[in-house]
Amino acid sequence: MFDHLTLDIATFQSWQRDFQAAFEIRLKQRLDDILGESPQRLKDAIGHAVIDGGKRLRPMLVILGASLDNTPGGLPDPNDPRLEQLWNAAVAIELIHGYSLIHDDLPSMDNDDLRRGKPTVHRAFDEATAILAGDALQSLAFSLLADAPQTDVETRLNWVSLLSTGANRMVFGQQLDLNPPAQIPALAELTRMHELKTGALLYAALMMGASGCSAEDRAALEAFIRPLGLAFQIQDDILDATGSAEQLGKTPGKDAADLKYSYVTVLGLDAARAHLNATMRDALNALEPMGARACGLRACARFVLMRDH
Amino acid sequence: MFDHLTLDIATFQSWQRDFQAAFEIRLKQRLDDILGESPQRLKDAIGHAVIDGGKRLRPMLVILGASLDNTPGGLPDPNDPRLEQLWNAAVAIELIHGYSLIHDDLPSMDNDDLRRGKPTVHRAFDEATAILAGDALQSLAFSLLADAPQTDVETRLNWVSLLSTGANRMVFGQQLDLNPPAQIPALAELTRMHELKTGALLYAALMMGASGCSAEDRAALEAFIRPLGLAFQIQDDILDATGSAEQLGKTPGKDAADLKYSYVTVLGLDAARAHLNATMRDALNALEPMGARACGLRACARFVLMRDH
Repeated sequence: MFDHLTLDIATFQSWQRDFQAAFEIRLKQRLDDILGESPQRLKDAIGHAVIDGGKRLRPMLVILGASLDNTPGGLPDPNDPRLEQLWNAAVAIELIHGYSLIHDDLPSMDNDDLRRGKPTVHRAFDEATAILAGDALQSLAFSLLADAPQTDVETRLNWVSLLSTGANRMVFGQQLDLNPPAQIPALAELTRMHELKTGALLYAALMMGASGCSAEDRAALEAFIRPLGLAFQIQDDILDATGSAEQLGKTPGKDAADLKYSYVTVLGLDAARAHLNATMRDALNALEPMGARACGLRACARFVLMRDH
Repeated sequence: MFDHLTLDIATFQSWQRDFQAAFEIRLKQRLDDILGESPQRLKDAIGHAVIDGGKRLRPMLVILGASLDNTPGGLPDPNDPRLEQLWNAAVAIELIHGYSLIHDDLPSMDNDDLRRGKPTVHRAFDEATAILAGDALQSLAFSLLADAPQTDVETRLNWVSLLSTGANRMVFGQQLDLNPPAQIPALAELTRMHELKTGALLYAALMMGASGCSAEDRAALEAFIRPLGLAFQIQDDILDATGSAEQLGKTPGKDAADLKYSYVTVLGLDAARAHLNATMRDALNALEPMGARACGLRACARFVLMRDH
């Protein structure tokens, strides 16, 4: 029903490639700057984990959240100099995401051998280096925020507050996920876990970008990002249950094999798909008041969610 | 030679007890505030790791660094309302220290069973919970700084910058420590590793406290804290080589057993003791220009270093 406000997929995908290329340049440059004193092995492990990998959804949300009012075609030019001061925030949140993936993959956590089609950090290096690479990525993220250029101190401090809260809640969710209840949880319980584990960092990403927006805009963005985060997780669970290792870039079927609860094990595959559609509708409905200003976010939500990996 | 500027040990120890009691109250209160949403198991693991444990040297440095100009007897009243805004910083740095101890003790790192006379977190709980407790402590520390009450945004952002840099460098040092050179390192190499691993966080602690001081004072404090951090580490290595588990509250003799390099294995015990004395002298010399204003720091350096655990 919002088709007239949505970009076509080719336009979005072309922008996404430009965005990812722009992000990659900033990421490498920031890592070079802040890893000057780092031992080579740690630098290599961090590079292995975070360079050239992933969809960069969280950085995308930072940039789209900051671009509601100056994007005639619905998508901002990633090299617009007005966005320059946002890149430290975009890189910082991706470093937090990267740390969480390294630690989640560890033998005592999800015990995963593959991530984004490559060996996980503890497989490619060793377990101690993987723990330390994650630890360093977290503090490096906060260094990037504290020292972001061309950004007033209020904004930087607001970013630190949003990112640290997101990171806290992400860990709370991860702990809940590791200690599932003895009985199959109710949907509300599962939802709560995912709002912490995945949703909190997506929320932080969008709100870091939107920190200069009006209270009205921020309320709409909050109402959008909460269901979007859940939709993302439901999709993840569906892919885990139905995808191949080649598609996923990681080992499939892990939820069922580990007896973990997921939307698929709780609802069944068909109901999980229906729940995904309803949740996506909630997210898109929340953007309605923003009209064409939210074209970029709307496309991001649609096309990034229509993923097979 | 600075005896006339040094407090006696009984005065310092009495103050230290008051300080630790004051710190404990603030620590518990901050943890209660920020762990509201945390799963109980994570809350328990964090409490096990950080409540009622350790000397609280880093928080002490925060408070002493902030008290150079308003401490007639050389030591500040821990309940002085002017210090109230410093406690978030003092708690934050102790949370970073606490996270580093949890992760350092993990099986793939130092593989330690005892810490402060209690089972380490991965022994008392499990390895995944220990990793997550450390991860959460790190982000919680930055939340405390971002949201510190009664503190201007410039100071809070400066704290985030100092603490994140200290935490980055600590991890760099830990990585060096885990991958020692194949041959016994030169003293300079060993020193560099410890400046990162232990010294960087002590530096952050003192400088967070002293963020309002004159450039001259800060230069003196920098010249003091660098050798103090090294002295602390040399003492640690000597205790590891000579202490009992009961004295240490952790397993002794681990450096030699793990073939790790320490000041004792590099220099030998006698030369390590001489090096400790020379390094302490460097630290105390640096405080000379501050005269009686540095009585508290001087006493802290002397008496905390004269420890048997």
